[in-house]
Amino acid sequence: MPSTQTLGIDIGGTKVESALVDPSGTVRTSHRHPTNADQGADRVINDIVDCVMECMSRAPEQAAAAGVGVAGQVDSEKGVVRTAPNLGWQNVALQKRLEDALGLPVAIANDVRAITWGVWQHGAGQGIDNLVVVFVGTGIGGGVVSDGHVLNGDRGLAGELGHTSLMPYGRSCRCPNRGCWEAYAGGWAIAERAREAARTDPDMGAALIDQAGRIDNITGRTVHTVSEQGDPLATRIVNTTAEYLGLGLVGVVNAFNPRRVVLGGGVIEGHPSYVDEAHRIVKERGLQVATRGLKVVPSELNAHAGVVGAATVARSRYDLDESSRAERWPLLL
Amino acid sequence: MPSTQTLGIDIGGTKVESALVDPSGTVRTSHRHPTNADQGADRVINDIVDCVMECMSRAPEQAAAAGVGVAGQVDSEKGVVRTAPNLGWQNVALQKRLEDALGLPVAIANDVRAITWGVWQHGAGQGIDNLVVVFVGTGIGGGVVSDGHVLNGDRGLAGELGHTSLMPYGRSCRCPNRGCWEAYAGGWAIAERAREAARTDPDMGAALIDQAGRIDNITGRTVHTVSEQGDPLATRIVNTTAEYLGLGLVGVVNAFNPRRVVLGGGVIEGHPSYVDEAHRIVKERGLQVATRGLKVVPSELNAHAGVVGAATVARSRYDLDESSRAERWPLLL
Repeated sequence: MPSTQTLGIDIGGTKVESALVDPSGTVRTSHRHPTNADQGADRVINDIVDCVMECMSRAPEQAAAAGVGVAGQVDSEKGVVRTAPNLGWQNVALQKRLEDALGLPVAIANDVRAITWGVWQHGAGQGIDNLVVVFVGTGIGGGVVSDGHVLNGDRGLAGELGHTSLMPYGRSCRCPNRGCWEAYAGGWAIAERAREAARTDPDMGAALIDQAGRIDNITGRTVHTVSEQGDPLATRIVNTTAEYLGLGLVGVVNAFNPRRVVLGGGVIEGHPSYVDEAHRIVKERGLQVATRGLKVVPSELNAHAGVVGAATVARSRYDLDESSRAERWPLLL
Repeated sequence: MPSTQTLGIDIGGTKVESALVDPSGTVRTSHRHPTNADQGADRVINDIVDCVMECMSRAPEQAAAAGVGVAGQVDSEKGVVRTAPNLGWQNVALQKRLEDALGLPVAIANDVRAITWGVWQHGAGQGIDNLVVVFVGTGIGGGVVSDGHVLNGDRGLAGELGHTSLMPYGRSCRCPNRGCWEAYAGGWAIAERAREAARTDPDMGAALIDQAGRIDNITGRTVHTVSEQGDPLATRIVNTTAEYLGLGLVGVVNAFNPRRVVLGGGVIEGHPSYVDEAHRIVKERGLQVATRGLKVVPSELNAHAGVVGAATVARSRYDLDESSRAERWPLLL
């Protein structure tokens, strides 16, 4: 019997996670390994291979293919990571490098586009053919399923929702633009807004500063923790963040007309009521036809979203349905 | 020989245009007819049928099918116009009504989604499988081809780009939101901004008021005409409109990652250099990977965009390629 399992690999700036995932999206075994991003692409690729070997040494079955999610701009067709700022990568031919090292067919994708596959096939968007997935972590990443296709766009960037306009004369973004959605509601922006507020009025910001140790250490997580303790400044920042999340989502919902929006990522997990607040704003301000049947829900794949998504990308790319696999990938038998 | 021509029908608030269009997108014969929107849907449907009859009486061939573009929210699958504000329509089963009256298979679509089909198959976006079409008329309409599919979304609204966010705390839109792209750069918004400016400072606005007769008659066209004469206020309004068009387009380009953007509609035709200005802003502020191979170009289908687009919708929906038609639509032989 050939394997029906796929490997999912999620590469971040500080760690890589790999997991053997079965066709139902269940993680059979997984492993995390630190990445040494500052030591260049060769070293990170070694880290990935080590992580996979360790994971597979405890796995009950071999994998038929591997999918990889990378935070960055990825050309999935050519198998090349164009830019990955967290890793310091430019034009790394990751697919070929990993196929050579692992001896498996490999498919690579942007991390949130991979998560979108996972959410669509196994998560809170299961069976929903018009689906928008927004993951709010350090930045805001996205992915869109429209009429049953995960959108790629000309260079694999479709669904890069964090860089839709929110206030084009506003805050500087990390991209060439000002006022992107992510520059108001992404984790780095929440931290930046909180630090500015604490610096402007250290008395008001005392609880934030105490929690973080010093102003420069304030993060999105600090804001959510201190807001839960009832601090007025942190609560104000959380409330405006909820508003920014909702306002950005209105334009996205009008443009893509999804049936469901799935919100996930560290910022959403840190303050789950962002989901209901964003839902309320979208219902209030979105086009009536677009919002009538719309649901905005939290992701269900939290801990393993990255690896389940990446494994789903591999399954989809290499068409690993029981019926079609044998002819297409005789090499895997 | 069965016909390979299709009818395109473009329904506006004041007129209906119908045309017989050949497979290359060339208009063979066309006719315009006033619509009596204030007299209800039955009367408008009669106007449409009269217009088609007049057009076909001079046509060299019969049509195999008809496509219809309607300014409004259209459920193409069910064949129902959900809302068409210019016509005062709610839930009109237009496809069935016209199939009964014309004895032809009919496909209906939002007008700019229909234009998107035309631009993709026969216009400035020919052969471009990641394409964004933006038509700036009274409002801003859009359509998106992504990975070779014209997006529909859950209720046929995907590509409703005029209601992406530009400044969510800004000007009221005609939709439930504030600060939509259309509320800054659509024809009605240009007129509104110009009237406000002329009212605030009638001396500065003298040329606009003279041209229009009175402040309330100032339109987008007035602004473009007076700007060409070198009037400082009109020129300022044109310049900010160009900036708003570009800023809105940055977010759209980042989200959809098209290879080409086609700009058309009355506002663009009234001031064609909006295209280059928007292009410049997108290149400057868009994500680098998204803008490297991107072109922003004017539509080539100006006068007949609506009917050519609608005819293309019919061709696509009823699969009127020479080879496949006979088996699929024996009733048309």
